Amino acid sequence: MKKNHLLTPGPTQVPTEVLLSMSKPTIHHRTPEFMAIFKEMNENLKYVFQTQNDIFTFASSGTGAMEATVANLLSAGDTAICVQSGKFGERWTEICKAYSVKPVVIDVEWGYAVDPAAIKKAINENKEAKVVFTTLCETSTGVLTDIKAIAEITKNTDVVIVTDAISALGGVELKTDEWGIDVVVCGSQKSLMIPPGLAFCSVSKKAWKLVEASKSPRYYFDMRAAKKALDKDDTAYTPAVTLCLGLNQALKMIKSETLEKAIARQSKLATALRIAVVALGLKVYAKNPSDVVTSISLPETINGGTLVKTMREVYGVGIAGGQDHLKGKIIRIATMGYMNEFDVIIGVSCLEIVLKKMGYEFEAGIGVGAVEKELLK
Amino acid sequence: MKKNHLLTPGPTQVPTEVLLSMSKPTIHHRTPEFMAIFKEMNENLKYVFQTQNDIFTFASSGTGAMEATVANLLSAGDTAICVQSGKFGERWTEICKAYSVKPVVIDVEWGYAVDPAAIKKAINENKEAKVVFTTLCETSTGVLTDIKAIAEITKNTDVVIVTDAISALGGVELKTDEWGIDVVVCGSQKSLMIPPGLAFCSVSKKAWKLVEASKSPRYYFDMRAAKKALDKDDTAYTPAVTLCLGLNQALKMIKSETLEKAIARQSKLATALRIAVVALGLKVYAKNPSDVVTSISLPETINGGTLVKTMREVYGVGIAGGQDHLKGKIIRIATMGYMNEFDVIIGVSCLEIVLKKMGYEFEAGIGVGAVEKELLK
Repeated sequence: MKKNHLLTPGPTQVPTEVLLSMSKPTIHHRTPEFMAIFKEMNENLKYVFQTQNDIFTFASSGTGAMEATVANLLSAGDTAICVQSGKFGERWTEICKAYSVKPVVIDVEWGYAVDPAAIKKAINENKEAKVVFTTLCETSTGVLTDIKAIAEITKNTDVVIVTDAISALGGVELKTDEWGIDVVVCGSQKSLMIPPGLAFCSVSKKAWKLVEASKSPRYYFDMRAAKKALDKDDTAYTPAVTLCLGLNQALKMIKSETLEKAIARQSKLATALRIAVVALGLKVYAKNPSDVVTSISLPETINGGTLVKTMREVYGVGIAGGQDHLKGKIIRIATMGYMNEFDVIIGVSCLEIVLKKMGYEFEAGIGVGAVEKELLK
Repeated sequence: MKKNHLLTPGPTQVPTEVLLSMSKPTIHHRTPEFMAIFKEMNENLKYVFQTQNDIFTFASSGTGAMEATVANLLSAGDTAICVQSGKFGERWTEICKAYSVKPVVIDVEWGYAVDPAAIKKAINENKEAKVVFTTLCETSTGVLTDIKAIAEITKNTDVVIVTDAISALGGVELKTDEWGIDVVVCGSQKSLMIPPGLAFCSVSKKAWKLVEASKSPRYYFDMRAAKKALDKDDTAYTPAVTLCLGLNQALKMIKSETLEKAIARQSKLATALRIAVVALGLKVYAKNPSDVVTSISLPETINGGTLVKTMREVYGVGIAGGQDHLKGKIIRIATMGYMNEFDVIIGVSCLEIVLKKMGYEFEAGIGVGAVEKELLK
């Protein structure tokens, strides 16, 4: 009798209300009925993105929206600064290369956040750089980037600041307009509480100038076509109707909880989880940990792959392992989206059970007890 | 962000597979399509009831099936022995009185199981008694009755043995035919893992003689009409179609797990829960505790009503309080039906959090740790 408890950093749990909203018969997208929902969805998205900028919704994974950003902002031969502090930062570099954009790479040791001063230096040394690509929460390491400080640097320059907020938006503070983040990229299957399949880009006026100037080949992800349609509450190509219905329902739930409280809730859960990690004698891997995903360094005696596999296959509790050189060495547990205190308790308790099974020694219940004490504060 | 975790002794959690099977468009009941499902459902019911007897399914609560049993087995002026060891035992007496059946009441102190010798004595002293009414798991106290021993007593007499297995069937061992239990009453919203709305009676050949002889007024619950229909894979009156579809799906899940393993699983969960109770310095109320519902005596300083209300309203964790004179003094947590280790962990952890809030002292996590250790055995 296995029940699935999804504690992975995407996909995340989907509320029943959202599942039900997606279980209705499919409606056609070129109808006033859908367009009214799409309009409401876009308004609700602006609330969660904290922006008045246009937000383009693509039927794609988050990577699609990252590619859309590169293809629409830059042309072959252009230069862009790419911050690489993990697997998803590297992706910006890879996409730039695919579009013959010259990447100026700022390499940051995994587990650490980029120093805004390094970005300032790169901008000063690369006057031709049009864009800085960053990752708000580097999902591979659990590190949070100080995007506010970075935007302070780009604000009074011609450089456009882009952040991959795929796993962070809705889970950590991100004041798009107030802080001046030109492009925010997001995906549907994280704190937005719906299944994978939608991706988003919010684009500032400053960034829009680059969109108009870009000579990169693009069609499906062409933001000019997307904007033309969006201005009429429409989409350029067939939208993923069901996911849009689900998203609108999920966004209504976030609005009803309020974004502020949703972020505070996820922060409280992440804090409790990090305290449990320490209580179990383990270490949080990230130096500037995000509140949406917690990376945990494992003792050498514990194989992370076996740990993740056992939790999932024997106990139905899904967490993520490490990627690339961190494979087997860390695990990652999400506290993003539709989660409450008992999701953390299930995660910590299952971790305790499997660690015990694997011979790691600690007092059973000490991690859960630490969570309880933190929750009672 | 409250999620509902139902740990009450009925209704219980319903698996998604069952919910989806009930979400299909309603089919008509007088069709080969429904009759084929109904036939399969009845065969699957026999597997879970461990009987070859007819099982009648009523669209009613469990109390309806209890009334059906009294009305079909007995007539006004008849005598029946009623074991009263809690609220549900008392119900047999009340229904008997409603049908002018003379109840010979065996009063058992709440929290204790009836001594089979007391039943033997009552039968000897009341030669006119036609039926003994028992409760397999007394949901109000969590006590399990030794029905096997009682059936040993009635087996070679004319006395028909009836057991209310509403909260027990599918959760504890009950070998209807092997042990010779004439009538087994059950409800849908317990270990059978579907919502409330269906109730069942399995009736032996020995009991059927009483059905044919009964002069009690009955129509909707008339087992003679039910049998006539059942013999043709049909129902006397409109069945609750959706619940039947859900039940068939749930029974398939039990068959796929196997009844033996399902019972062992619930037993393991109940054992772990009882160990956690002791670790928390509390006491199990029932002297012969069942594995489907655990009653827990509270310290005098803890108000059970407040405890239950806080767990439900603040944390979304549903457990039951005490009934009648046990109101506020005990709580009851189910381990029946669609439950696994993390349901127990959620229950114990939430109990810990709220007990701490209410000023009860213990080491946070000690209950959950005890569950983990037991599960690892």
